[in-house]
Amino acid sequence: MHGLGNDFVVFDCINQNVSLNREQIRFIADRHFGIGCDQILLVEKTSTGADFFYRIFNADGGEVEQCGNGARCFVRFVHDHGLTKKNPVRVTTLSGEITPVLQENGDVMVDMGIPLFEPERIPFVADKQAITYLLDVEGKTVKISVLSMGNPHAVRIVENVETAPVNSEGAFIETHPRFPKRVNVGYMQIDDRHHIRLRVFERGAGETLACGTGACAAVVTGIRQNLLDTPVSVSTRGGKLSVSWDGENTPVMMTGPAVSVFEGEINL
Amino acid sequence: MHGLGNDFVVFDCINQNVSLNREQIRFIADRHFGIGCDQILLVEKTSTGADFFYRIFNADGGEVEQCGNGARCFVRFVHDHGLTKKNPVRVTTLSGEITPVLQENGDVMVDMGIPLFEPERIPFVADKQAITYLLDVEGKTVKISVLSMGNPHAVRIVENVETAPVNSEGAFIETHPRFPKRVNVGYMQIDDRHHIRLRVFERGAGETLACGTGACAAVVTGIRQNLLDTPVSVSTRGGKLSVSWDGENTPVMMTGPAVSVFEGEINL
Repeated sequence: MHGLGNDFVVFDCINQNVSLNREQIRFIADRHFGIGCDQILLVEKTSTGADFFYRIFNADGGEVEQCGNGARCFVRFVHDHGLTKKNPVRVTTLSGEITPVLQENGDVMVDMGIPLFEPERIPFVADKQAITYLLDVEGKTVKISVLSMGNPHAVRIVENVETAPVNSEGAFIETHPRFPKRVNVGYMQIDDRHHIRLRVFERGAGETLACGTGACAAVVTGIRQNLLDTPVSVSTRGGKLSVSWDGENTPVMMTGPAVSVFEGEINL
Repeated sequence: MHGLGNDFVVFDCINQNVSLNREQIRFIADRHFGIGCDQILLVEKTSTGADFFYRIFNADGGEVEQCGNGARCFVRFVHDHGLTKKNPVRVTTLSGEITPVLQENGDVMVDMGIPLFEPERIPFVADKQAITYLLDVEGKTVKISVLSMGNPHAVRIVENVETAPVNSEGAFIETHPRFPKRVNVGYMQIDDRHHIRLRVFERGAGETLACGTGACAAVVTGIRQNLLDTPVSVSTRGGKLSVSWDGENTPVMMTGPAVSVFEGEINL
């Protein structure tokens, strides 16, 4: 499955007994020797009272807490495979419970959490909290906004996202000393108050087709600067997302596609 | 399936009606939005008297004539799926008939054709034909041998293949003006007369996990320089191949693995 090109191998661990070790996960995720994917999703039972336990493994075998594109695929999967008829679905993850909603058109809406702006919670080195900051980047000064969507984001508004220096300047900002845990860097072009175009340099990964938390971060900062109104359509290289946010201390809701590409069997 | 990490989506076009257009091929080969592979292989019937028609499409949708790693997978596929019990199998390709042989251990031996050494047939710009040539590369002179295995190859012998300048110097030689149609560049470390290690910068692709024709080119030039004896085991980053060659005007035989990874269904 994929959500905007962020691709997944999804295992039904309810109707079959699946237990994957690190070596098997790396093999499955390998794009030449295995099936090939960004992450592996496991659909498991849970005793927490939720409908499912959603586990996520990166291609390197490590288990991670959250993945917005994956959550959309998870919900499509459990509905398409008849594992539940409930909507919304209550899903337990390592970072708490989420309740994604399957829309009539097949898109899925996911609660992406409440954005945080306090510099020390991002973390970002600043004297005091502000809407935008000036950052020294290779001898020039650029204006950015910073926030946490569970992970740190810097967002820069540009005239033209196609010519934005995503891979050069983005890589530089990612490791800027004012971001002690590094940062995802988004370049946002504002078409009108409900439409933006976005490219994101992801921390540790480089530019990706679509970054769900990056889309949320860009829309939130656009609304805070009174440049955007909720809901906002976000065009990424992988496709379109819709992001809504009702302001401080409310969660960001992200709606986007989840596509099943092929089904198969593998002997492990 | 894959042969040394060169991976394929293989379609049985005998028991089902499959016809793929360029857009569908690009979709299938896409590693994020589709299944993901280097090439797509079609197993078709033929009226030539051979057992099968073997068609190969690159990820960009273009049909190509030959692929040694693919030919091994093709033979494993038709045997594993019970499409034939013949061994060797007579296979028609766009560049003529091949007769790969399935070995008892599951490896497949493929006739890779007769190597050509005449400079104009490679093509390579040289005053006269020689076993090795000196090439000016970024201000220094390096010794290479050149030959055609259906495609042009330059091979350079190095002390240590791990530290060889495959991606820097290889990229430079690939587009050297003495190779009018560019060239694949192999870096060969000779362990003993029956074992080499090899890395190849493939024309138009950069370094790949394993290049079948590159392995043949390296072994042929090692035998011609009286540094190797047939058969030769070739260690690549994707795994091991065995190459035999009985000398001028005889074909190079390459034996290597063909692995089935998973089976699946896709709606196109």
